[in-house]
Amino acid sequence: VEAEHSPVEESTGFVRIVAFTDGVFAIAITLLVLSIDVPPGLPGSGLDDYLADSRGQVFAYFLSFAVIGRFWMGHHELYGMLRDFDRPLVVLNLVYLSLIVLIPFPTELLGTYGDRSESAVLYALVVGSAAAVGLFKVHYILRRGLVRPDALAAARRLPAQMWLPPTVFFASVPVALLSATLGELMWLGILLDPLRDRLSRRRPADAS
Amino acid sequence: VEAEHSPVEESTGFVRIVAFTDGVFAIAITLLVLSIDVPPGLPGSGLDDYLADSRGQVFAYFLSFAVIGRFWMGHHELYGMLRDFDRPLVVLNLVYLSLIVLIPFPTELLGTYGDRSESAVLYALVVGSAAAVGLFKVHYILRRGLVRPDALAAARRLPAQMWLPPTVFFASVPVALLSATLGELMWLGILLDPLRDRLSRRRPADAS
Amino acid sequence: VEAEHSPVEESTGFVRIVAFTDGVFAIAITLLVLSIDVPPGLPGSGLDDYLADSRGQVFAYFLSFAVIGRFWMGHHELYGMLRDFDRPLVVLNLVYLSLIVLIPFPTELLGTYGDRSESAVLYALVVGSAAAVGLFKVHYILRRGLVRPDALAAARRLPAQMWLPPTVFFASVPVALLSATLGELMWLGILLDPLRDRLSRRRPADAS
Amino acid sequence: VEAEHSPVEESTGFVRIVAFTDGVFAIAITLLVLSIDVPPGLPGSGLDDYLADSRGQVFAYFLSFAVIGRFWMGHHELYGMLRDFDRPLVVLNLVYLSLIVLIPFPTELLGTYGDRSESAVLYALVVGSAAAVGLFKVHYILRRGLVRPDALAAARRLPAQMWLPPTVFFASVPVALLSATLGELMWLGILLDPLRDRLSRRRPADAS
Repeated sequence: VEAEHSPVEESTGFVRIVAFTDGVFAIAITLLVLSIDVPPGLPGSGLDDYLADSRGQVFAYFLSFAVIGRFWMGHHELYGMLRDFDRPLVVLNLVYLSLIVLIPFPTELLGTYGDRSESAVLYALVVGSAAAVGLFKVHYILRRGLVRPDALAAARRLPAQMWLPPTVFFASVPVALLSATLGELMWLGILLDPLRDRLSRRRPADAS
Repeated sequence: VEAEHSPVEESTGFVRIVAFTDGVFAIAITLLVLSIDVPPGLPGSGLDDYLADSRGQVFAYFLSFAVIGRFWMGHHELYGMLRDFDRPLVVLNLVYLSLIVLIPFPTELLGTYGDRSESAVLYALVVGSAAAVGLFKVHYILRRGLVRPDALAAARRLPAQMWLPPTVFFASVPVALLSATLGELMWLGILLDPLRDRLSRRRPADAS
Repeated sequence: VEAEHSPVEESTGFVRIVAFTDGVFAIAITLLVLSIDVPPGLPGSGLDDYLADSRGQVFAYFLSFAVIGRFWMGHHELYGMLRDFDRPLVVLNLVYLSLIVLIPFPTELLGTYGDRSESAVLYALVVGSAAAVGLFKVHYILRRGLVRPDALAAARRLPAQMWLPPTVFFASVPVALLSATLGELMWLGILLDPLRDRLSRRRPADAS
Repeated sequence: VEAEHSPVEESTGFVRIVAFTDGVFAIAITLLVLSIDVPPGLPGSGLDDYLADSRGQVFAYFLSFAVIGRFWMGHHELYGMLRDFDRPLVVLNLVYLSLIVLIPFPTELLGTYGDRSESAVLYALVVGSAAAVGLFKVHYILRRGLVRPDALAAARRLPAQMWLPPTVFFASVPVALLSATLGELMWLGILLDPLRDRLSRRRPADAS
């Protein structure tokens, strides 16, 4: 990280931090499946009832897969712009990951008690906090000049694209206190929004 | 990797997406072992009964290990032919992974309630959907020209090799409604088929 | 895998298979900790009783960590000698991994029911089978000429070093039927043996 | 990496050991979330009671995330200084990892029975042992000359920085026997200490 180091070493340290972070994302997204339980010893009709109930768990699984998948795509793009890490960024990245890795917990809560406001509030707080720390990370990276020169223009556009998700998730907290379902609909809106954005951005690329 | 992109950045992003996908496959296939439970506090004869019953769980474990292993081999081959990702392919890849990662859930269901049609139907639907999205992914890659020129001929042969698994898994759904065992036999047929294919392809290689 | 491919592509496919296999080892060895349960809601004396009982689970954890660690060291050495994979080796490697990944299951059984012959027998069968498939893999690699020329002499010494573990684990099956503890002592002997071997090999290296 | 070895082979083996170790760290830190349970079938007020109780589990999660994160940062720095592994270091590294991977077990214990001295004592023993083996690893690396020449000065400063954590964790054992809370406060002191250190080191870098 200091000037006295050779470039090869730098890139090894850099590559290892990025690989560690990608690995944590891959594990967290895969652990989501463990939030779907299969209770042993159910009788015939009990299995049917369980499968009907488990729809909520499967919905929560796909919701969180989309949420962590979106976080990973943003993280993938951001780390492709970096030229270096400094030590505070490594710590900040661990704080960020501690919130990403926590997501399977509110996911299981939401899948099991999806109609309860408590579940929706906790889910919104964890995902909103992860998104807020992610936004703070971009500000830090820009302020400390850790972006590659050729990616600077793209990196400076990121904060304007990233303030919406934490805002919506935090704004859904009071809504979820009234109705868990209404809060969840707000999250789906924010998850589908980048899809629309991406489809509209694709057209000029096709034309070129 | 191509001349029209900044080479270092492109290849880093490409390598990271492939590594993320390989990592998710590795984690999903390893989590399968968690579908085999060990209940605490069993008395002497209870342990024997449990071990006799757990044969179904061990069978489901090996079945799904073979299924995810086959998916990974196909994915390994396909991504070895790619020259680039575009953003819709990254999203499509996440949709594909969300179905691969889900497999431990119907595996646990099949291992615990293997004689129930519901288990076999859910298993066939999840695995069939993953196979169908995988086939769609190949069509997308070919249509968008994301294959390396030297791998184009091999890539064009993939759809003809890949339509059978989703067809068999979806066709097993009505069969499994009548008999879970019959549906499972259809899956074993499709899993052993490529082995026969590979053995027959090996002979000319030995002759050369 | 075929002659018409470029060397760079070959190495990418090769590196990805090795990374996948290393990843599966890393996940399987880490999942061992999940075999140690923490039951909720225990009263004061119940926690003390539980902690006294959990010694067997902690022993089984360290035993299997040593077992998978040894397998990984052997696999690390072997794959460092390879020059290429062919398709049957990829399949054989998956069969091998399906037995490595299974180890947390008999580990949990051994930790929970360590005094029962059934647990020790199942543990010995799974670990012995993994060791036997590992030995068969080395024979296949040698017969198909997949070893780098400069590593051929070292690779040819491997079978003579590798027949002992599967033999001891399979031989411990009838012993464990009489006494689970005696069977476990046989495994400890084979785990500590390479340590002695390594220490004795270190001395000439120090002298040179 | 050195002239006396086949360079490609050495660096592949070296990179694979580092990647395996990084992977085990990434999995262990992510498995921490599984120490937070979500019991099914709670009635309305039962969920509120459970969420109030689960604060201890969430605290233990963040504590252990910080602990494993700190270990990983130290390990990241140390392995960036290495020029090679020898076989005893590979074994020593596995012993070290077996203690890191064990951390989710005392974490779950601490989260569920945080007010019990037994939980705090077991937590301190496991984390203290991991820190002690980590310190021993640095001594071994220095004694065997496995550090790159340009990193030797930095590596020699490591033992003086690393004796504090194991000392504090072991010293907290008798304290935790009197009061679990007092023992936990000692751990927080040691976790926040490097933060202070890092902030003070940052200022000269800003000035340059």
